[in-house]
Amino acid sequence: MLSRVRSAVAHLVSSGGTPPPRPKSPDLTNATSALPTAPLEVPKSPSARAGSGSTAPPKTAEARASFSRPTFLQLSPGGLRRADDHAGRAVQSPPDTGRRLPWSTGYAEVINAGKSRHNEDQACCEVVYVEGRRSVSGVPREPSRGQGLCFYYWGLFDGHAGGGAAEMASRLLHCHIREQLKDLVEILQDPSPPPLCLPSTPGDPGSSDPSHLVGPQSCWSSQKEVTHESLVVGAIENAFHVMDEQMAQERRGHQVEGGCCALVVVYLLGKVYVANAGDSRAIIVRNGEIIPMSREFTPETERQRLQLLGFLKPELLGGEFTHLEFPRRVQPKELGQRMLYRDQTMTGWAYKKIELEDLRFPLVCGEGKKARVMATIGVTRGLGDHNLKVCSSTLPIKPFLSCFPEVRVYDLTQYEHCPDDVLVLGTDGLWDVTSDCEVAATVDRVLSGYEPNDPNRYTALAQALVLGARGAPRDRGWRLPNNKLGSGDDISVFIIPLGGPGSYS
Amino acid sequence: MLSRVRSAVAHLVSSGGTPPPRPKSPDLTNATSALPTAPLEVPKSPSARAGSGSTAPPKTAEARASFSRPTFLQLSPGGLRRADDHAGRAVQSPPDTGRRLPWSTGYAEVINAGKSRHNEDQACCEVVYVEGRRSVSGVPREPSRGQGLCFYYWGLFDGHAGGGAAEMASRLLHCHIREQLKDLVEILQDPSPPPLCLPSTPGDPGSSDPSHLVGPQSCWSSQKEVTHESLVVGAIENAFHVMDEQMAQERRGHQVEGGCCALVVVYLLGKVYVANAGDSRAIIVRNGEIIPMSREFTPETERQRLQLLGFLKPELLGGEFTHLEFPRRVQPKELGQRMLYRDQTMTGWAYKKIELEDLRFPLVCGEGKKARVMATIGVTRGLGDHNLKVCSSTLPIKPFLSCFPEVRVYDLTQYEHCPDDVLVLGTDGLWDVTSDCEVAATVDRVLSGYEPNDPNRYTALAQALVLGARGAPRDRGWRLPNNKLGSGDDISVFIIPLGGPGSYS
Repeated sequence: MLSRVRSAVAHLVSSGGTPPPRPKSPDLTNATSALPTAPLEVPKSPSARAGSGSTAPPKTAEARASFSRPTFLQLSPGGLRRADDHAGRAVQSPPDTGRRLPWSTGYAEVINAGKSRHNEDQACCEVVYVEGRRSVSGVPREPSRGQGLCFYYWGLFDGHAGGGAAEMASRLLHCHIREQLKDLVEILQDPSPPPLCLPSTPGDPGSSDPSHLVGPQSCWSSQKEVTHESLVVGAIENAFHVMDEQMAQERRGHQVEGGCCALVVVYLLGKVYVANAGDSRAIIVRNGEIIPMSREFTPETERQRLQLLGFLKPELLGGEFTHLEFPRRVQPKELGQRMLYRDQTMTGWAYKKIELEDLRFPLVCGEGKKARVMATIGVTRGLGDHNLKVCSSTLPIKPFLSCFPEVRVYDLTQYEHCPDDVLVLGTDGLWDVTSDCEVAATVDRVLSGYEPNDPNRYTALAQALVLGARGAPRDRGWRLPNNKLGSGDDISVFIIPLGGPGSYS
Repeated sequence: MLSRVRSAVAHLVSSGGTPPPRPKSPDLTNATSALPTAPLEVPKSPSARAGSGSTAPPKTAEARASFSRPTFLQLSPGGLRRADDHAGRAVQSPPDTGRRLPWSTGYAEVINAGKSRHNEDQACCEVVYVEGRRSVSGVPREPSRGQGLCFYYWGLFDGHAGGGAAEMASRLLHCHIREQLKDLVEILQDPSPPPLCLPSTPGDPGSSDPSHLVGPQSCWSSQKEVTHESLVVGAIENAFHVMDEQMAQERRGHQVEGGCCALVVVYLLGKVYVANAGDSRAIIVRNGEIIPMSREFTPETERQRLQLLGFLKPELLGGEFTHLEFPRRVQPKELGQRMLYRDQTMTGWAYKKIELEDLRFPLVCGEGKKARVMATIGVTRGLGDHNLKVCSSTLPIKPFLSCFPEVRVYDLTQYEHCPDDVLVLGTDGLWDVTSDCEVAATVDRVLSGYEPNDPNRYTALAQALVLGARGAPRDRGWRLPNNKLGSGDDISVFIIPLGGPGSYS
């Protein structure tokens, strides 16, 4: 099944293939998409794929199903085997002899200690060229416009229940972002506020009447001003949605295995957009200070959203779950007694008399890394999981999961960054055993050991972070210097220097 | 109608009267309550009402309907008329000759400049004694237990569409908090973690078997530890709910006018609980530093919650509204064009093709103080509003409003406070024209002019803040020294010194 998914993906990536599904309406729970209207293209500019790419096109279904890593690692068959070795857990980085990653990016990864057959993290680092749709606004294009836009892109995808969704996202999500940005190429390059209204069909000659372009001062006096920045945020949000819809679509014909958390960074026109759906994390370390650039979406952090949904749509609980939370599973002998609970409206706890339906399993249970939705999944946002069912049941879990990221924006131009200021992206394998402060200390320790223009410094930092989270084999386990257990999970780290592309390389 | 409500309220407050409705289940949208099971009592300790009380029992229906202010203002009939004068807008405070407010609290208020006939803000400041229910846990009470608990209580209620809800809340919400705390009196005074499970009937002799009291170490190994603090939070949350249910109940027989925002502070066992439902605000000013203790709940801050509800329950939109947001009302001639929009999942904006249903009025529209739900109401949390309908329609708005507060906790024992450290509570009349920083500056300026033990300093500060927000009559309006318009709204301010009750008086 996996191979079929990947065939479909390869077909898409090779351009002119199956177009992506595009949702008819911005409808989260409606998985039925309208037919696609525009083909998805690979970047046309040769520079657009410089030094990047995610996964090499696999040669056979068997090879593909076995294992794949980001192409920028340039792994030989032997290297691929070493990267797949749970016993050795060798840290992988792009070779320092080959073509470097864009923006002097550092990267390192390591496979898990045996929790899944393969490394289910995937990564992507691209420079993407966006060619605008011709005359989007209906106004004839001025010669200085329509030059297209480039964005830098980094993505970390932490798969679960199979590697299919993470691999598909690593190959395609940036293409969906490009697709969403196509309508905005002219608008983002025009300093005036975005038009509220555009003609129906891009490039439609009949719509070149300027009256179609409703400017912000026309019509009602009360209207919101929408910023360029919020258009980019909207484009990224919708790209996540379209990506998720595509996985649902592919699922019908073939099968997209599992789901994935997605942490994505887009650099466009001076601003860094950090979009997170899941439990990966991004922080900026700037002059030693830590600036959180994401938050995690888990059954604990999203408890009230999940409970509200179960309360408003009890049919989603299938008579098997209760939307109420209890400190532990209620036992039949406790019927009629009063037990602590909380519902979707509460952050505190109170006592309620236990009734028969409280004996159902709680929608949200457990704490920390053991917290689960419907006793099954420990993250509440991400891509895929369309086939995920409650264990020994046909009850779908997907309605409780959101594919939408939270997007935070950081204006690169508002601060003069030094070579040691970095944006650190990591999957939960890093953060489970490493605090923000420990990461900041490692940033300081490692980068101060390299010249500011040493091209290896950011990869060395990524490696140090991955090694520090993995630990060393000792006492039948992977242990940190303090003898605590290291992370047995897949660990992947990007280091993005904030000084800009190539400034220090 | 108002008089009937107030009769019912007076009846209740006089003890032994109509008991409050108690919801059968923690069900936000189900306004149908089970029959009450326990009578609501006034505090039994004589000290419990010292220096406080909200509104004096009105003598006639006419007098009650005309105007009422908190009893702690001790207004004479002439004073009441002056307080009701929109032209003079005299600042009202408790007299410095009478009984002072508990906890050396400062208070000041002023009526609006004519936007409503009467001052629709109400206030309450009480010391409330909670007598525990006998042997809640079923375990025979130890002699040292069961002494009851005292809490200090402050409430600001900003009414809209009539003063009934604000007045009812100012008379009763603290009684509901006391009621919720009754079961917790023993538990909160016991340093061990709260029991997860209690016997069914408090004081039931048959339940004194200790096996009914399921301790945190029994049963499953995986269970959450619930703190004493979170029990108090839960009690406050549920008290808001019961208060709102009672307003719904009273509405059936009589009528509770309008709705109100509620900002409530409870001091209990060393901690300050700040509960906010609406657009009032609380900040701590400590050593010049500002610590926000609440956030506002408006159509803008709660846009996504409202849109999600409209999306999941489209019947609540009655075919009249769309859950999508547009920067301005869509016009029929724009059908087929593409306009900026955002839905419940987005923080950014994108373009969508305008369809027929997008011509409906948006569920959320406008900006800042002009933001509205269903073109009607500018706050999204509070008490009451059970009869609120969309203008020229029968569509109810209440399902979109939440009665639940956000509760923030501040541990008074974690910091040694000086006499100039204060908690400032204000209705939006204050905050519409005064920033947090300006309030902090006024705190510094006013308090430094008084001896630390001067009993008038906190009332003087409250008066200065109210005066500073009201301004002076000039150029046919109320204007601030910078010539900007002052607040034409009702303005009410509590100043709570953080040094503790009576420390500096």
